[in-house]
This record gives sequence, C-alpha cells and structure tokens, in this order.
Amino acid sequence: MYLNQMPRYEILSEEAMDVLDGGWRRIVSELGVEFMLPEALDYFRAAGQKVEENKVFLDPEFVLEQVAKAPREFDLVARNPEKSLHVGGDHMAFSGVYGPPFVREGDVRRDAKMADFENFVRLAQSFDELDSAGGTIVEPEDRPLDSRHLDMVYALQTLSDKPYMGSVISAENARDTVAMGEILFGGALPDSPVSISLINCNSPLRWDDRMLSAMLEYNRTNQAVITTPFLLMGAMSPVSIPATLVQQMAEALSGIALTQLVQPGCPVVFGSFLSNTDMKTGSPSFGTPESAIGLLCTGQIARRFGLPWRSGGGLNASTVVDAQAAYESLMTMLPTFLAGANFVMHAAGWLEGGLVSCYEKFIVDIELLRMLKHEFKPLEVTEESLAFDAHQEVGSGGHFLGAAHTLMHFRDCFYRPLLSSTDNFDRWTKAGGRDAAARAAEIWRKTLDEYEQPPIDEGVRGELRDYVARRRIELGDEPVPTPAF
Amino acid sequence: MYLNQMPRYEILSEEAMDVLDGGWRRIVSELGVEFMLPEALDYFRAAGQKVEENKVFLDPEFVLEQVAKAPREFDLVARNPEKSLHVGGDHMAFSGVYGPPFVREGDVRRDAKMADFENFVRLAQSFDELDSAGGTIVEPEDRPLDSRHLDMVYALQTLSDKPYMGSVISAENARDTVAMGEILFGGALPDSPVSISLINCNSPLRWDDRMLSAMLEYNRTNQAVITTPFLLMGAMSPVSIPATLVQQMAEALSGIALTQLVQPGCPVVFGSFLSNTDMKTGSPSFGTPESAIGLLCTGQIARRFGLPWRSGGGLNASTVVDAQAAYESLMTMLPTFLAGANFVMHAAGWLEGGLVSCYEKFIVDIELLRMLKHEFKPLEVTEESLAFDAHQEVGSGGHFLGAAHTLMHFRDCFYRPLLSSTDNFDRWTKAGGRDAAARAAEIWRKTLDEYEQPPIDEGVRGELRDYVARRRIELGDEPVPTPAF
Repeated sequence: MYLNQMPRYEILSEEAMDVLDGGWRRIVSELGVEFMLPEALDYFRAAGQKVEENKVFLDPEFVLEQVAKAPREFDLVARNPEKSLHVGGDHMAFSGVYGPPFVREGDVRRDAKMADFENFVRLAQSFDELDSAGGTIVEPEDRPLDSRHLDMVYALQTLSDKPYMGSVISAENARDTVAMGEILFGGALPDSPVSISLINCNSPLRWDDRMLSAMLEYNRTNQAVITTPFLLMGAMSPVSIPATLVQQMAEALSGIALTQLVQPGCPVVFGSFLSNTDMKTGSPSFGTPESAIGLLCTGQIARRFGLPWRSGGGLNASTVVDAQAAYESLMTMLPTFLAGANFVMHAAGWLEGGLVSCYEKFIVDIELLRMLKHEFKPLEVTEESLAFDAHQEVGSGGHFLGAAHTLMHFRDCFYRPLLSSTDNFDRWTKAGGRDAAARAAEIWRKTLDEYEQPPIDEGVRGELRDYVARRRIELGDEPVPTPAF
Repeated sequence: MYLNQMPRYEILSEEAMDVLDGGWRRIVSELGVEFMLPEALDYFRAAGQKVEENKVFLDPEFVLEQVAKAPREFDLVARNPEKSLHVGGDHMAFSGVYGPPFVREGDVRRDAKMADFENFVRLAQSFDELDSAGGTIVEPEDRPLDSRHLDMVYALQTLSDKPYMGSVISAENARDTVAMGEILFGGALPDSPVSISLINCNSPLRWDDRMLSAMLEYNRTNQAVITTPFLLMGAMSPVSIPATLVQQMAEALSGIALTQLVQPGCPVVFGSFLSNTDMKTGSPSFGTPESAIGLLCTGQIARRFGLPWRSGGGLNASTVVDAQAAYESLMTMLPTFLAGANFVMHAAGWLEGGLVSCYEKFIVDIELLRMLKHEFKPLEVTEESLAFDAHQEVGSGGHFLGAAHTLMHFRDCFYRPLLSSTDNFDRWTKAGGRDAAARAAEIWRKTLDEYEQPPIDEGVRGELRDYVARRRIELGDEPVPTPAF
C-alpha cells in the first residue's frame, strides 16, 4: 500500500497549538458533550466523570489518559492477505464515496440501485488506487431499509477481497456486520480488525444513540471505528476555523475516550469532515480554501495526539463532472496528501456535495489519486540521476528524444495518465472531440467489462448467503433473488 | 499586492542540494553553454572565460560572483503607482497567458486577432487577481509580424495601468518597448524598471541571438528580464528530474551571469518552465506530477541563490475547459503557492498546451487564484477566534446559523466564490443547468461590458500613438486605423 514519505506541510505554530489545546479542554470540561445512549453515560459515570442528564463533563486529563490507550497504528485485515492494510504512520489508505442516495451516469441522474452498489464495488476492486472495497457507496433504494445492510456487506465481501466498512445504523446492523466478518474469516475473527466503520457525531457536541450503539458493538469485537465530527462551519460549528478545530478535538477525543472505556486498546481513528457553509446560499461548500486549511491543521493535531486520522477525499459541490468538480476535488485531495491523512474516505466518485455517486467522477478521482501518489514520492537525487552522459551526448541545441539515456528509461520515467489526454487538437477532434467526462465514461464501462471476481471459498459464500437470507426474514423483509455472485 | 506568508514546502535535503550543485557546475565548466550572439561572447571573453566558437566554458565561481550582483528583490513600476509591484521575497505577482496563436471562446477555436488581445488586456485590468497587464497574451494574426509589437505594447500601456511585459523578438523591438516606456512615464524612465520581459533559452544549453540581443537592450536600460530555460523533459532535457534541474540551473545562471556583465545590478528573475513529454504520444504534458515536483525544487534552488524566480502558471494539455483542464491547472498552481514563486506567468487563460488563450479558462483560473490567495494566508489562532461564546450560545445538537457570532461575521468569514456554484440540483437545473465553463462565459462577457479604461494623460496617449504610427511606417507596414482607446 501507499506510504507517503514526503514532508508534512504544517502551518500551526506551537503558540497556536497551545491556544487550540486550551480550547478543547474548556469545551469538554465547561460545556460538556452529550451522549444519547444510557450505556455510554454509565461508562463515563463509572470512570468518575460528571454526568448531568445526557451530558458528560469531562476532565481533559482523563480524556488524554483514555486516548493514550488507543493504538497509534493498526492493521486492517483483508480476506486476501496481500490487500491487508496498515492504518497510521506514513500509510495512506483510500476508500470510495460513502452515503449518496443518487447516482449520476453521464447526463442521467437517478435514484441509486443495488446494481449500482455492486458496480461501484467492482470498480473499487479493479483499481489499485483504492485500498478498501468501500462502505455505503450508495444507498440502494430498491432494497428495504431494514435489511439492505446485509446485501451491501455481502457485496463488499464477495465482489472484492479488500477490507470493507461496516453498517452503523444500529447495534443490530453492527452485529450483522461482525457476524458476517466471522463467517468470511472461517468462523472466527483474526486478532486485528477486518472492518472499519464510520461513527459520525451529531455536531455540535452530541453523539446520537444509534451510531453510539453500533460503535460499542464494534469496540467490543475489536473492529475499527472512525469517530468523526461532522462539521460544516456556519451550521454545525462557528464561522471560524480555530473554533471549529477545537470543537473537532472536543468531539473526536470524547468519542475516542468512550471507545477506550469500552475496550481499552481497541482500534480507533480520529475522524475529520470539515468544510463550510456558503453563507450566501446556505448550502454546503466543498473544496474551499477553508476546508484545505482545516485538513492541514487536522493532520498536525491528530499527530499531536498520536492518533491515526481520517479525512474527506475528493469533495466538491458541483452537479456535473466539470471544471468545478475537478478543481474542488483536487483542492481537498492535494492538501490531504500534504497533511498525510491515514484513511481517506470519499476518495472516488463524490459529486454534488455527496448526494451523488458518479461513475465518471469515480474515474477522474482515480486519475487524481494516481497522480498524487506519483507526486508524493521522495525525489531520488544521485549522481546517476543527473544523467551527465545524456547531456554529453546531446550537447547544445539538440534534443533528447533519441538519446541513449532516454531510450533506456522512456517506459517508466514519467507518470502515465489513465484519463488525461495530450492529443493535439486535430487528433483529439478526429478521436471524437470528447472531454474528460466522456473519456471517463468509456474507462469505467471497460473496467466493468473486464472485471474479474476474486475467488472465494464456496462454503464461505454459501454460509454468507444463508446468513443474509435468514436475517432478512428475521428482519421482516421479503426474500430477494439470490445474487449471481 | 499578495504576500505569501505561509511556510514554503521544500523537499530537497542538503545532500540532494549538494549533488545538484555539483551538477550545474560540471555542465557549465565541462560542457559549456552556447551564446549565439557575438556581443555576448565578447562579454564573457573580456571577463576571462574560455570561449570556443559560440560556446562559453564557465568557471562556476565566476558565475556565482556575477549572480551575486543581481538584486534579491526589486520594484516593477506601474503608471498607476498603486499598482506597482515588488518582485522577490514573499511577494507573488501574477500575469496572464503568454504566446498562444489561437483563441477559444466557448465551442469556437480560431486564430487570435488584435481585438482578442485587447479584450484579454481589459480582463487582466479588471481582475485584482492579476498584477500585470500581460505580454504577448495572444499573437494577433491580423497585424503584420514586423510591427504588431507596437500595437501590443500600446494596448498594454493604455487599456491597463498595471506593469506589462515587453517584446523580445529582436533588439529593435526591445528598443521600441523601452522608448514607449519612456513616453508613458513622461519622457524618462524611473530608477526601477517599468517592464519585465521573457528571455527563453533555446534549451538545451543554447541562448539564441535574437532573444539575447533583446535581453541586452533591456539590461542596459535597467528593464527587468526573466531568463528562462524552456524544459520539456524528454525533448529539451533528459528524462530525469534531477538532470533537468541541474540543466535549468546551468542555463538560468549562465544567462543571469551575462545580464550582470552587461549591467551590474540590473533586475533579473530566475526563470523556470519545466514539464515533461508524454513518452507515449510525444506530445507535451502539463500539470503532471513531475512538473509539480519541479516547481517545489525550483523554488528551493532559486532561494539558495538569493534570486527572485518565475514559474509556469495554470498549465494544462486539455483542449476544452473540462475536468482535465481544471485539475492539471491546479496541479501546477497549488505547488506554485507551496513553492512561493515570485512572478507567475500563464496564470490565467492557458489552454491546449499553450496554443490557445481561452476566455472561459481565464475565468476558471481567476477563481483558482482567488481561492489560493485566500488559502495561503496564515491562520490567526487567538482566544477570540475560538468563539467560545458561540459554543456557549448553541450548546449540544443545535446549529450556528443564527448565532450572534455568525451574524456578526457571516459576510467575510469565508471565501466567496466568483464562479463555483453551491446551488442544489433543482436550483441549478432551473438556472439553466450550466456547467462551470458556461457560467465562466457569462462572467467574462459581463466583465468586458463593465470594463472602464483607466485614465491616461491625453498628451502621453497622443505621443504613444505618434510613435506607433511613425515606427510602423519605418518598419514598412501599412497604417492601421487609429484605435478607439
């Protein structure tokens, strides 16, 4: 997997870090954080923290003691051992878009179906740029809400052999995810987690009961969670980046403290999803200067606490795969690399502020990831790299196209694009005059055509199918046709 | 003007810098650099350097002695003193695209005309994001080659009150540029330069006679020049970034040494234009990972020599204003800010590898510059910025849209886009379903409609017109109608 061994771009001074440090301490101790699950309150109460109704007033030093129990880095195990991940340190893992109810395919925008979900898993499996099969890549509206998580987890487990994200709608859904993980791994979970799940805070300063109950299930079974403040400045946090950073610290750290009370040492990731409201329209903005600054600061902060951290991805507010979609996405992805995020969600396919999972945008994002992984590799500067022989051969006013050094290295000397075209105008016109979105459409279709399902033990597949069928009926939903995969 | 007070992102170790330092020294001393102008050779010969035919073998220490005479920073004077620039240090100045023979306006791609040139000067004048009126923004094919520089300089001087770039086709054109500068400034040039001109190296390792002769004119009149190696790796330099960096140092420093022999202390900028060939198609690529790395390294290198430096801009190889155009442009512009370039050419309008100056792309680039200038501003972290009162007011689970702190700051708390839309799907569809390029078209047209020419002394305008008319006839070209401006 990808290691980012380039320097981190850090912009907060020690003085600034001190001010921020005082900020989160004041919030957790003076304002407190709400945990809407009685069980969570019990944990805090038992640990000596002050609890009033649903609100916990936390001693900052107690929070730090809990946070210190969380692992700095951990493995995330794939059913194909070659695709297991390491979360933390210089490692960066990438996962596709998460959550959209809609799909865009060229000019068509429509409700997302289970078939789309499956397609996106196949695409995630097909591109090495993505390290995870994904999670709720789309919300498949053609499956009942109660049991669709079973179909999704089954698709993630069988159409891909990469690690996947679990369901977080309820404790029951989390138990299903864990149970299906046990089946996938031959009846028992390995020591390291096989799933990673997104636990959002209902910002500001409130953790809701359903997500918390799912989180506790995952903590107890040593499955990884990402505790993520959900911050659109101006709506869920103040219209100030520093104020939002301290809120993010207060929320993430309080959630992480709970995970360590439930199961000391269980794997957890410091989550960040930070952008701002467009104060003119009231709509969410993405790929803004503020979100880039947020990313740079969050990386520095998470490292200060010794925690792996999660960031947004290729976020943008555009409706179509146009220039705005591209520049906003890169305006978040390039800072993500500068800041060294360890687990990057929404890394491919995000469109329209996260309402849409877009096939063409998926390919644009894959190209961005390929470019950035190539870019964020330390430059080797050696005597040999100076290619003095090439300069001797070519001299003044010549060209290097046929130089011996060029002929020896031309295959792998530079990044080779997947999507970008360098065709001149005539060649581009003759080839159909297609813009990047049109070329991307060809690439995802071809990728799906060429997709090969990774092999899986037939017994395991059968057990997973049986589990899904049984649980679907228990949950009161009608049977669906057995999937072809 | 814009000051970039964020940290520089530097990726070369001291060891790497040492290897590169050895590299350029070896090139200039062992391989030598060609100067195709006898006068230039005379300067080097008189200074004790070994000259064989057109080739100068340079003592690296001698080169460094000359380079040390160049100013670290200098002013670039505009006829409107409020628009004078400072080149060097933390200052970043931005200038539009330079050189394209073609224009794109929506779906139409055509030869560039003088009317386009004038329009782009008006646009450059209209947006604060650009600091210079520009140079050869397009090559106006409806004016004769011999005298079009007169029309271009006149347009730059009168349609804008920002500093401009001079003609570099020949010594005679440079003299015209200087003479028109004298007229513009009331008969005599101020102590600091009023123009800055692009002197390209015919890479590898050759400076051609025409550009050199223009450069010498500018050096003698204390007008600023940018000595720029023109490096597409694989064609004009080896297929290796380190090899290209040392070639860039050898070329730029040898050119700068000459400027300081001609006129010690004259203003000069370390130029960089560095990208790579697509080794599959043989076409130039832009916005590549390699070009981004080149930018980061070049900034570090130029600072080592104490020189202000120039970079590319919003470079891309795309034919239309699509996702590729946007992500490639940002893939060069964001590193340009990370590297702190002092003079950024091609900062707005560049399309199709520099063959096309595009109206819509101009607006996309203005948006990128606005965003990046907003992004690369040190974050102020103070107790007040933590907005604890807002957290107290809103508490858990509320929202900040109506908080007192929000109402106090909502107007200027976040970046406000020029082009980007946060409209939701319904609103976007009702507004015509226009992508970023279509919206950009509306913006540039409106900007031209609202353009107001900056005032100019009528006597000066008359003198400039007389000069242009007289010189056009001396150059053997037919009169053209007197411009309306």
